[in-house]
Amino acid sequence: VPVDVGLDRAKADDYDAIVLPGGQINPDLLRINDKALKLIRAFYDQRKVVAAICHAPWLLIETGIIKGRRATSYKSIKTDVINAGAKWEDSEVVTDQGIVTSRNPGDLEAFCNKIMEEIAQGRHAQRAA
Amino acid sequence: VPVDVGLDRAKADDYDAIVLPGGQINPDLLRINDKALKLIRAFYDQRKVVAAICHAPWLLIETGIIKGRRATSYKSIKTDVINAGAKWEDSEVVTDQGIVTSRNPGDLEAFCNKIMEEIAQGRHAQRAA
Repeated sequence: VPVDVGLDRAKADDYDAIVLPGGQINPDLLRINDKALKLIRAFYDQRKVVAAICHAPWLLIETGIIKGRRATSYKSIKTDVINAGAKWEDSEVVTDQGIVTSRNPGDLEAFCNKIMEEIAQGRHAQRAA
Repeated sequence: VPVDVGLDRAKADDYDAIVLPGGQINPDLLRINDKALKLIRAFYDQRKVVAAICHAPWLLIETGIIKGRRATSYKSIKTDVINAGAKWEDSEVVTDQGIVTSRNPGDLEAFCNKIMEEIAQGRHAQRAA
């Protein structure tokens, strides 16, 4: 995917959702990038959809937004997700108050469909608390 | 390093210590490998030195042996190490009851020296409790 907007210019105000792709390298680099963490947190605070697949739930751990939520992830980071206070489930897609997570590339269809469904629902009022 | 003994044949009885290298890929693969986890746990149970650098503390998280210990790691997994119940420190090498951890390749000299020192001390009696 060619990059059209870099982290310096990306704003949550301009979008309905953020989708965090996986892989072992990308989320490991982004979790120590303050601009990336602030951007993710802004989507969360605006009650917009935050979606993460494979190893990307590390970013939900790092921003602290997965605590107390139902979630899934790639199997190798299951322990990290549980230790961060999430309720881990072995399902193709798990949604809790606009946070959408999936396990691996085999779950992509369910993951994408659920993201579109959540965007259609609009802002996630429960998060206001 | 050419592999001389594979996981199928490796036994803790034959060695004084296990050294877990880092990188983003290797520990991520090993933490879902039961043979690797059992081998690490065997070193721990025999009160031998267990050393991990960079991203390898994920393996100490997965085996559960880092809980309650002082430790360090590569900065990106600091949150995972803390969430696993360790007391994280920003030091070139941290040792707690024979568990030796370092942050990154810049710490290698301190890491290797401490491993040799810990091996020279022999078995870690405190762990027996």
